[in-house]
Amino acid sequence: MKNPASNIVPFVSVDHMMSLVVHVGIERFLVELAGYIEEDFHRWPVFDKTPRVASHSSSGVIELMPTSDGKLYGFKYVNGHPLNRHNGRQTVTAFGVLADVGSGYPMLLAEMTILTALRTAAMSAVAARHLAPAGASCMAIIGNGAQSEFQAMAFKALLGISELRLFDIDAPASRRCAANLRAHGFDVTICRSSQEAIETAQVITTVTADKQHATILTDNMVGAGVHINAVGGDCPGKTELHRDILMRSDIFVEYPPQTRIEGEIQQLAPDYPVTELWQVISGAAVGRRDERQITVFDSVGFAIEDFSALRYVRDRIRSTDFYDRLDLLADPDEPRDLFGMLLRHEGTRPAAKPNVPL
Amino acid sequence: MKNPASNIVPFVSVDHMMSLVVHVGIERFLVELAGYIEEDFHRWPVFDKTPRVASHSSSGVIELMPTSDGKLYGFKYVNGHPLNRHNGRQTVTAFGVLADVGSGYPMLLAEMTILTALRTAAMSAVAARHLAPAGASCMAIIGNGAQSEFQAMAFKALLGISELRLFDIDAPASRRCAANLRAHGFDVTICRSSQEAIETAQVITTVTADKQHATILTDNMVGAGVHINAVGGDCPGKTELHRDILMRSDIFVEYPPQTRIEGEIQQLAPDYPVTELWQVISGAAVGRRDERQITVFDSVGFAIEDFSALRYVRDRIRSTDFYDRLDLLADPDEPRDLFGMLLRHEGTRPAAKPNVPL
Repeated sequence: MKNPASNIVPFVSVDHMMSLVVHVGIERFLVELAGYIEEDFHRWPVFDKTPRVASHSSSGVIELMPTSDGKLYGFKYVNGHPLNRHNGRQTVTAFGVLADVGSGYPMLLAEMTILTALRTAAMSAVAARHLAPAGASCMAIIGNGAQSEFQAMAFKALLGISELRLFDIDAPASRRCAANLRAHGFDVTICRSSQEAIETAQVITTVTADKQHATILTDNMVGAGVHINAVGGDCPGKTELHRDILMRSDIFVEYPPQTRIEGEIQQLAPDYPVTELWQVISGAAVGRRDERQITVFDSVGFAIEDFSALRYVRDRIRSTDFYDRLDLLADPDEPRDLFGMLLRHEGTRPAAKPNVPL
Repeated sequence: MKNPASNIVPFVSVDHMMSLVVHVGIERFLVELAGYIEEDFHRWPVFDKTPRVASHSSSGVIELMPTSDGKLYGFKYVNGHPLNRHNGRQTVTAFGVLADVGSGYPMLLAEMTILTALRTAAMSAVAARHLAPAGASCMAIIGNGAQSEFQAMAFKALLGISELRLFDIDAPASRRCAANLRAHGFDVTICRSSQEAIETAQVITTVTADKQHATILTDNMVGAGVHINAVGGDCPGKTELHRDILMRSDIFVEYPPQTRIEGEIQQLAPDYPVTELWQVISGAAVGRRDERQITVFDSVGFAIEDFSALRYVRDRIRSTDFYDRLDLLADPDEPRDLFGMLLRHEGTRPAAKPNVPL
């Protein structure tokens, strides 16, 4: 009855993840991933929603984000180290594991730096599909760092956004972003201010990197009817929108206990009314009501989205060779004989060096 | 300034872990690992002691056990699934990660099924070095499953135990254990009861696998002066010793908040006095006081021991080839250009298949 391969865990490296995305096609990848996220948001109440486990230091934070639907268990390891940019490292890196709840055996190990950028973008587009004004074609992107192109691609694939208005305080970042996106058929305008960027935009994506309360958008800038996709305000002490914008918007969140600590709504009273996005997706709550309404998706990223992404990758790598096989789990023929396995290993190896005296 | 290899994470597979143990020699490995554990117990107060994060299901539990000393961060993934033995799987499997707190970058991924058995045994022997009667040479091992041989080897390497008295309700388990250990020079007696096994033993190791309150030892069996190494009672609802034995012993534990939930002392009042082992190791508390005293090490396994084990393996694999290099972290030359990295990847690959229509 034993599955001889149960001790081998598929591993999707950075290189294989890129190959998988290129093979599937980035837009199709985002659309399919969005489908997995929608599916998991539909069955939101079945998930075990553990808070993330954070280890803070003066230089940053390392977090573990676990969740389970009762059949599968997933967790993501993710760090946030703003100073890494000064030594050529990513400020955020991540990897994740999917496991079988029935046996406790890991089933997938995957890089998640690239995958997190993709799932964050897919999540934003899923929210916007329920919240953005009908027929939106123009999006402003304020903050043109590593996440920005993924956001643009997801909004193209899922909502048909074709026109982009970019602004970043770092002009080379906007130029790099524009070059990357023009190659994907966008009509791109680089703007000199947030104010200029949001003119004519039906969707406003804020995805800046400053780790402090910044006011990327002030109240008088934002006109009626827009959808704000607030991605950058995602940890305690970091927000992007002026409080007054929030006060005249309808606010949609992933998981209120986490968003009230990490999201834009940390600026509001702890009982300020918000709508849980899963209720909109499952039909229990209304998304956009009318064309004058301002909607805000206060995105912080939740473990269930990583779970959806790992689940998608596990399914998508089947019948491909975009993974390695890791010998991660000891699986002796006689499960109680771990020591015997070690003894037999000794026997199968070339003569070991004699022990150095203790 | 960039370290070109910072995105590559060393990975110690099951096969490499076995090769490393065989290469170093199991006794030397246990002695060196014990040194790392003692070192970390000496500086116990510097550690961030997060409780383990458990996800329970009807078939078992999956846990994440993180800790940090401010410079390094480590966590272990471990499952416990008693029914796995019926389908040829391990009931417990584990892997772990060590990371750099300064950058958040993982530095090591390692199998920990074998490593946990080794660290648990090394921990028991470290405790016994401070608690067992002087000159102990005979140990009873009650429960002869996967952990038992590792316990024996650690007590041989660190305390000079040479005589073993084995008992298990599963006789073939005792025979397998005896065969494995006679090959390592022990004088082994297989016994027909716990009572018979503990006759003449100065150290009693209980390491049974039943997930319920079992009474492996009753009060009248245990004479003065012995050290009890209680390894098997390690989760809520699982104990091995009769309460009355505990009442006339001095009890030593790793981390009281965890041991009071998982260890033998879950049978006692929540404020029952226990001594923290790190205080004995650092000299702040007394271990064994006299030759009539019964000492109990109520072992449940704590994250810091896994941290020590990962730290040891990281140091020990240097200048060996007992690891692979995992492409786990996206590390573009320009850290803000994750999307560009993906685009360039597309350019370097053979023509991708055309996208299937969305």
